[in-house]
Amino acid sequence: MPAEEFRRYGHELIDWIANYFEHIEDLPVLAQMEPGDLKAQLPSSPPEQGESMQAILADIDRLIVPALTHWSHPSFFAYFATSTSAPGIFGELLSAAFDVKSMLWRTSPASTELEEVALDWLRQMMGLDAGMSGFIYDTASVSSMHAIAAAREGVELRIREEGMSGRKDLPLLRVYASEQAHSSIDKGIITLGLGQRSLRKIPSDKEFRMDAKALAAAIDEDKRNGILPFCVVATVGTTSTSSIDPVPAVADVCARERLWMHVDAAYGGVAAMLPSHAHVLAGADRADSIVVNPHKWLFTPFDLSAFYCRRMAVVRAAFSLTPEYLRTPEAADVKNLMDTGVQLGRRFRSLKLWMILRSFGARALRARLAEHIRLAQELASWIDAHPDFERLAPVPFSVVCFRWKPAGMSWSDAEVDAANERLLDLVNASGDIFLSHTRLRGRLAIRVAIGHLRTTDEHVRRAWDLLLSSRELISTP
Amino acid sequence: MPAEEFRRYGHELIDWIANYFEHIEDLPVLAQMEPGDLKAQLPSSPPEQGESMQAILADIDRLIVPALTHWSHPSFFAYFATSTSAPGIFGELLSAAFDVKSMLWRTSPASTELEEVALDWLRQMMGLDAGMSGFIYDTASVSSMHAIAAAREGVELRIREEGMSGRKDLPLLRVYASEQAHSSIDKGIITLGLGQRSLRKIPSDKEFRMDAKALAAAIDEDKRNGILPFCVVATVGTTSTSSIDPVPAVADVCARERLWMHVDAAYGGVAAMLPSHAHVLAGADRADSIVVNPHKWLFTPFDLSAFYCRRMAVVRAAFSLTPEYLRTPEAADVKNLMDTGVQLGRRFRSLKLWMILRSFGARALRARLAEHIRLAQELASWIDAHPDFERLAPVPFSVVCFRWKPAGMSWSDAEVDAANERLLDLVNASGDIFLSHTRLRGRLAIRVAIGHLRTTDEHVRRAWDLLLSSRELISTP
Repeated sequence: MPAEEFRRYGHELIDWIANYFEHIEDLPVLAQMEPGDLKAQLPSSPPEQGESMQAILADIDRLIVPALTHWSHPSFFAYFATSTSAPGIFGELLSAAFDVKSMLWRTSPASTELEEVALDWLRQMMGLDAGMSGFIYDTASVSSMHAIAAAREGVELRIREEGMSGRKDLPLLRVYASEQAHSSIDKGIITLGLGQRSLRKIPSDKEFRMDAKALAAAIDEDKRNGILPFCVVATVGTTSTSSIDPVPAVADVCARERLWMHVDAAYGGVAAMLPSHAHVLAGADRADSIVVNPHKWLFTPFDLSAFYCRRMAVVRAAFSLTPEYLRTPEAADVKNLMDTGVQLGRRFRSLKLWMILRSFGARALRARLAEHIRLAQELASWIDAHPDFERLAPVPFSVVCFRWKPAGMSWSDAEVDAANERLLDLVNASGDIFLSHTRLRGRLAIRVAIGHLRTTDEHVRRAWDLLLSSRELISTP
Repeated sequence: MPAEEFRRYGHELIDWIANYFEHIEDLPVLAQMEPGDLKAQLPSSPPEQGESMQAILADIDRLIVPALTHWSHPSFFAYFATSTSAPGIFGELLSAAFDVKSMLWRTSPASTELEEVALDWLRQMMGLDAGMSGFIYDTASVSSMHAIAAAREGVELRIREEGMSGRKDLPLLRVYASEQAHSSIDKGIITLGLGQRSLRKIPSDKEFRMDAKALAAAIDEDKRNGILPFCVVATVGTTSTSSIDPVPAVADVCARERLWMHVDAAYGGVAAMLPSHAHVLAGADRADSIVVNPHKWLFTPFDLSAFYCRRMAVVRAAFSLTPEYLRTPEAADVKNLMDTGVQLGRRFRSLKLWMILRSFGARALRARLAEHIRLAQELASWIDAHPDFERLAPVPFSVVCFRWKPAGMSWSDAEVDAANERLLDLVNASGDIFLSHTRLRGRLAIRVAIGHLRTTDEHVRRAWDLLLSSRELISTP
């Protein structure tokens, strides 16, 4: 594309995006379409002749936007509400132009060194100790998989060399996590060939936190049965309720048993930047590894998962492998990022993180997180004060779990669940807000997660009002 | 950031990028810096107060650009030369604004359906049959790991449920690949807990193609020894020489032995779009899975790896797992992309691919690929015609492997290797071009890979002239 054309359409796109953000609240948060609607409107074969950028951009408006669920909408409260940001978008734009593959230092010195610096900044902001060095993966799923793989390497049973099949000498290896841990832990363990049997789920207490005594008992029992415990995953900010496992107590168990402790703080870790929430990473100074996702609650466009590890040499022992065509003269003096993971090529992700940390500054980032937590507390207080609603979990961060349970109605538990499901479908179908759910102790819980840069009191208030008015439309469970 | 400011800096960045591409040839391809130079110039702590975008962009010029190896430089001939493109950059820009996580259909209908359509277009362009359905992973490393994981699931030994540790009933499982296969196959197998012992490397013939007879013999031998063969990886475009394994013969073996056949066509697969090169995917109609990377040789900014599979249900059986908080009412009627891999969240990558396919059109894409192949043939002909140079491998695509071997000099093999290493260092240090190397049958080979949109006859000619003139500076090996 000629430079003049690139400038023209580039400016047009920037204006389009500015306009998109200015008018996003006119759009339904959750796509209002049926499965297959978009596909049906697209040609079944590629064009033989190139098309004008004008035609393509027109189709973005006509076809793509109506098929989007708008994660950038301030009333997106589902799953974990995330948020892109201007400096993050600019970082991605530059990164797409540089198109660097951060595999070897020489293919990407800027990416290699900026990754180290930006992750160290983030480490300091969260109050993690300097013994933790950082690495960027795409997602927390992949970060946690690498943590467990490193732990597996740490057992020194030659699994990298000899694998686990066809061996009579290997005991059953076991990882422990709370029953509230994220499904990525299960998936990581399946991928690593350990199988679901290798993951023992530890019960949680009434506030959905791992029971450290049950953990210790499970490990004891397993050892008596000839099973080899090697890793524990503690979660700071579980997906259902954002509960916080008792990391210091888990760390005691791990220290005693010499197990790799991985902390999944993908969502909650950043809150440790706030003096009021520094405690959420208490005990993490004893973790072997920890994952924190700037793409969740630090205004970083997806994807960027920050992995910190005290034993990065073990991760590299598990994954490094240099074929001849990737040897470089400077290998002994540099960090080659390809050595730390299953992926060889890696995007220049640190650029956006560096631009975000600089553009916002630490103070403004803390202020945003504090504001989201305040909004969640506010919503929790309305729920607590309302006779027809019941909160189902504490609110340590910015996620609120609750259900509608009309006072004076003698609905069964199943009926209450069904009514909440209908309420959820009703508010989501409005297009005004998007909420998701979970199930807690068997009960259906509506989840409101607050995390978008542009979410204000007014958006939270409107979500609450919509819940209140929508329930009026449901007379029977 | 206020909309006006976003527009102002956005326009500035677009102009900056246009300018970067216009003047990129004034910059050294390979970063001219020492390890640590960038890090030393960066503050060791994050700013407390936000900084202006003006200051950040000034640092991009002052600090980042000099620390970049410019993959977007038309004289980047190392590894596989790749290329970003204007529609690809625009796609990434939009994707960063939408910030969609393509995990569930409802969180990303546009991404889910566009992925299916764009990959089907690409499938048609390469002449793959309609039995192959597509999925986008980040990298070929991850695509191939999923292929092998699916093959592992296909043996029906309950590895997902029971894992491989602590079992006396599991035979040694084995995967086969050419000794020329990419290191990602080794890494995938290590990650999956199969271990290096589970990968048997099959010798290649004098043109670096897997020896299908040796493959059949290895499988026979393994079976006699109680080993369970389950997967073969054939490569179309190996990393060292771009050689093409005899896929039809490998397919015969896989059919006879009922093994999963995965084809790693990460680099070479797109060439099948050309009538002259349709044969490179011969036999792929019998593959279980195949990976092709648009981010390698289809002008797509990194990352986007296209995985095609005839047995996607097996991939899903290996990886799907739906916790309560990810259940949706429409689950039975839609494709939820999270079911097909270890990663839960996924970027909206299909957008850039769709924009690239439309903006170029199939004809122009074919023309670019044909031109790169023509340039490589041209270079090969100069090498063949020169008494002091020796070509070390055939050139089926756009990678040329050769070495300098001065006629009339009685240098030992080790001396020739050393001289080529010095030649390589010399031309790379010039900043004018960037080449990489490999080792073929023990000999050091210089590799020239051609794949950038803006690479012309003149760039290839200049690279050749630089090799010729630089060798004059080396009088002793």
